[in-house]
Amino acid sequence: MSEGIVLFAHGSRDAQWARPFEQLAATLSHKVKGPVRVAYLEAMRPSLEEAIAALASDVDRIRVVPVFLGHGGHVKEDLPQLLEAARERHPEVHFSLDAPIGEQPAVIEAIAVAIAGDCS
Amino acid sequence: MSEGIVLFAHGSRDAQWARPFEQLAATLSHKVKGPVRVAYLEAMRPSLEEAIAALASDVDRIRVVPVFLGHGGHVKEDLPQLLEAARERHPEVHFSLDAPIGEQPAVIEAIAVAIAGDCS
Repeated sequence: MSEGIVLFAHGSRDAQWARPFEQLAATLSHKVKGPVRVAYLEAMRPSLEEAIAALASDVDRIRVVPVFLGHGGHVKEDLPQLLEAARERHPEVHFSLDAPIGEQPAVIEAIAVAIAGDCS
Repeated sequence: MSEGIVLFAHGSRDAQWARPFEQLAATLSHKVKGPVRVAYLEAMRPSLEEAIAALASDVDRIRVVPVFLGHGGHVKEDLPQLLEAARERHPEVHFSLDAPIGEQPAVIEAIAVAIAGDCS
């Protein structure tokens, strides 16, 4: 059984916006065994559907990680609908959905350390 | 000289959305000497203007930290305009503006570690 990870982010018309998410995918790729892809809700590609379609033939499981700090409508409403459509389209793949990364205490702590470190 | 920090976030109509930012402010408050406030671009309060007005009489310097992962229009266009208005309104305060937290390599690393840790 192999697992792919899709990092799901908001997207923007500004190309620079994607950089942290691309860096996150590159960093994460060195920490996990399976493939890691970024997907965007709007304005950028691939979409979640496209990223999942590209992975679906290579893995048995796909884990979707919302790379959002806040837990609002995009994570609560848009993403579950997109994931439900993906489940119907790829019944042979097991999908799981993480909490948004802003709900991880370790992430909040790291952001606080990064901000406080700049005070010195 | 004392410094206040304003954590500038997007905002949402969903009250739960603010939780990571409030937790970040609480965590950061234990790591720095001065006051820490959260401010929102839209849909939540206080606004940046309101947060700065509340701090301006207590500190000499205000550091604005964009709590955004991506570096797009909100950080590049909306925030500089809001900050310019604050500078005109509070000429006695020294303002500084950080890069968005998604540009901090330590933050990206922490997010990657948090995601990879869930694989075990």
